Order: sequence, then structure tokens, then C-alpha cells
Amino acid sequence: MKDRLRIVMCRPTRAGNVGAAARAMKTMGLSSLVLVDPLHPAEDQDAVARARDGRDVLAAARTVGTVAEAVADCVWVVGLSARDRALGPPLRDVQAAAREAVERVHDGLVAWVFGTERDGLSNAELSACHALARIPTDDALTSLNLGAAVQLACYELHRAGMSEAPSPAEVPAAAATRGEVLALLDRLHRALVAVGPFAEGDAKLRAVEQRALRLLDRAAPGPEELRAVHAMLKWLGH
Amino acid sequence: MKDRLRIVMCRPTRAGNVGAAARAMKTMGLSSLVLVDPLHPAEDQDAVARARDGRDVLAAARTVGTVAEAVADCVWVVGLSARDRALGPPLRDVQAAAREAVERVHDGLVAWVFGTERDGLSNAELSACHALARIPTDDALTSLNLGAAVQLACYELHRAGMSEAPSPAEVPAAAATRGEVLALLDRLHRALVAVGPFAEGDAKLRAVEQRALRLLDRAAPGPEELRAVHAMLKWLGH
Repeated sequence: MKDRLRIVMCRPTRAGNVGAAARAMKTMGLSSLVLVDPLHPAEDQDAVARARDGRDVLAAARTVGTVAEAVADCVWVVGLSARDRALGPPLRDVQAAAREAVERVHDGLVAWVFGTERDGLSNAELSACHALARIPTDDALTSLNLGAAVQLACYELHRAGMSEAPSPAEVPAAAATRGEVLALLDRLHRALVAVGPFAEGDAKLRAVEQRALRLLDRAAPGPEELRAVHAMLKWLGH
Repeated sequence: MKDRLRIVMCRPTRAGNVGAAARAMKTMGLSSLVLVDPLHPAEDQDAVARARDGRDVLAAARTVGTVAEAVADCVWVVGLSARDRALGPPLRDVQAAAREAVERVHDGLVAWVFGTERDGLSNAELSACHALARIPTDDALTSLNLGAAVQLACYELHRAGMSEAPSPAEVPAAAATRGEVLALLDRLHRALVAVGPFAEGDAKLRAVEQRALRLLDRAAPGPEELRAVHAMLKWLGH
């Protein structure tokens, strides 16, 4: 799927941003980068330094003269834009655009087009796009760094492409039995009665023990964790 | 809401990344940045150059010596990690963590903690966290740039905040601050080292302490409950 997603950077003026974009692509599994009329060549040392793990992406980047060449073989082209553009293609949220891109790669190549650092997409570049995607920011007057914009777009493309693989959420640990929890409470109780200023049945002692029980219950401890608390009590001499 | 979200960068070694993080924060409406033991001061010219629109965020950054200081007044602390960590806090997806953060700011300050460029979070930094958040990447062996990781996290926080409903009606129980929880852990640690068969830094001791911390974190104790545990330790002679 990802071999059909292309990142197109139009007239980038800072080589470091091109390198950062290559690294960003690599982290998200994208590898097809096209530079349109860049100020510095892809081999620029600032670009190479920033690319890090993405040096292979940078080395394989293709350089062309116009955006039309960069997207000629694509079936769907999205331009990244900070704002709605008069007469431009329809604007949608970057996440929705990423989902649509992942659908449309079934039909052919899909390109994501980024404008130059200072001014964004030119009219010719806008015309090459089927749609515009906007990365939501706090304040439309505050601009994202170009490399950061590529990173965010690649991240959303990666997320959209992630299958329903099992979520990396925490694995629920086996819960301790009620008997195991109460055995721990009982040990604590005996330790407190043995050393403390409390008689069996003291109200203050009971209040403290009840708080400890509620704490344990909310934590829903596993047997391993109860053993850790037992070990601590033993080491502390109880 | 966003004034209660803090970004903490631990031991950053490249000033450019700190500047990029400040800019990333600014684009997403965050303004509270804390640097823990940075190699270069926030006024470093590389940091200022990269910060651009985020120069005010950078100028207002606070510098402290330890992660514990950076999060002492926070009620929920998330560490960014590329992978699951043995004995570490539970790992969740960054988007889920951002949604949870936006819920938890109703209880107090929330911090997002980023490790150093090369090695990520140290054990002490992990211990300061209630949870770990992972940014999904194509290949776990490919590392995100630190500034890019801050950008992605701030983006998810911004997105989570956009869809945020008005504050929930029910009054949440007061949560203990991170400083209060860590103070309890520290007391327990000192007691165990004082009486136990362990040297400072023993792996088994650390394993037991980490289990106790996980247990406390799942229970989300209030200040009253922590006082009860302190009282027990005192009565038990520690």
C-alpha cells in the first residue's frame, strides 16, 4: 500500500527540511519522495545530516522541474494547506484526507503535495490537486515547520493504513483472588497490632486498614504485585 | 485547558530540538515547557533560531535539575516511549493517552515527558510516569526525531482538546500530586535500603518498588490514602 503513496515537496528552500521530511517518511514507512525545483540538491549536506534513518529515502528522491511532472501518473493528489483557498479544491481535515488516500491507493498512485516554506502552494500547484488537507493548529497565523507538516501527514497516513492489528494496549494481568487480597490485609493487620499502639478492634486502626483495602481494590492487583508487597513487609521485618 | 498541559524535555542534547519543540508547542496552543538538565540553555542561538513563532514559549521555559522537580505538582504524568519497558508503566497509544490527558486536566496539571535523543527515558524518568505513550511508527527500529515526537504529541493533544466536551459535571476525587506519590515511594525505598539485604540500585529491589508504584498508579490514590500508608509505615517503625 505505502509504495503507492508519494510525498512531493515543491520548491523547498531549506535543505534541512528536506532531510527532516525524508526521516519523517522513513519512520512512517513511506519511501517515495519527489522534489520539485528545490533550491538545494538532495545530496546537500544539511539534508543528509537531518535525514538520519531516512538517508535511503533521500538518496532515492527524484527531482523534477514542475509539479505537473511530479504527479502526472497519480490518480489522486492532495495539497497541504494551512487555510482555505479561493477557487482552490475542497479543504478537508488531514485525518479524513489520509483515510481517503488509503482507500484511493487501490485505484493507483496517490501524491501528497507540500508548498514552499514561506508561501505554501502556488496557483499552479493548487491546480494539480484534487483536494486540500489542513492540519489543525491552535492558531491559523502560526505556521508549522515544513518538516513537521510532512511528519504529521505521514503519521496520519500511517495510522490510516494500520490494519485492525491488535492494539498495543496493556495486557490485562490476571487478578488476584479475594482470598489473596484478604490474606495480605490480615498480615498487615497482625503486623500493626504487634508493633503499634493499637488494640485489636481499635477504630483508628480499622479506618486505616479500610483505606488500604479500598486502595488495593481500585488497583485490582495481580498475584505478582501482592507478592511484591508481601516481600516488602518481610524485608521491613514483619 | 491547555494551560494545564506541560511538556517536559529530559536532558536534551541538541538545542535545535528544543527550539523545534517550542515551535511545535506554539502551533498547537501549548505554552508550558520545562527543561530537565539540558546540555544547552534555552537561550542557545540554535534553539532560538528553530523556535520561530514559538520564541515566547522558549523564553518562558523553566529549567530544573531532575524530572521529579519537573512533575512534582502534576496529577498525571505520561512518558513518551518507542517501546514497552520491562517494569515500566503501562504502554498505550499516543492518541488514547492524549484523550486521557484532556480528561485528567480537570483534576490538575498533566505533564508529557520526553527522554534524551539517544536513549529515551532513564529509569528515574520512567518512575516519574503514570503511563507510557507510544507513537505508532512503521518500524520500531526507526527513531523519530525528538522535535518531531513533541510535534506529534502536541498535535494529538490539540486534536483531543478540539473534541473535548465541556467539563464533566461530577466532581472528581482529589488526586494526589506526583510529588506526594514519589515522596511515599522514596520513604519506602529508604526503609527497604535501611533494613533490607539490598544495596542502592539492586535490580530486585527496583522490581519490587516498580510493582508497588504500578499498583499505586492504578489505584489513583488521594492525599488521605497516602497519609494512611505513611501512618502505617511509621507505626511499623519506618
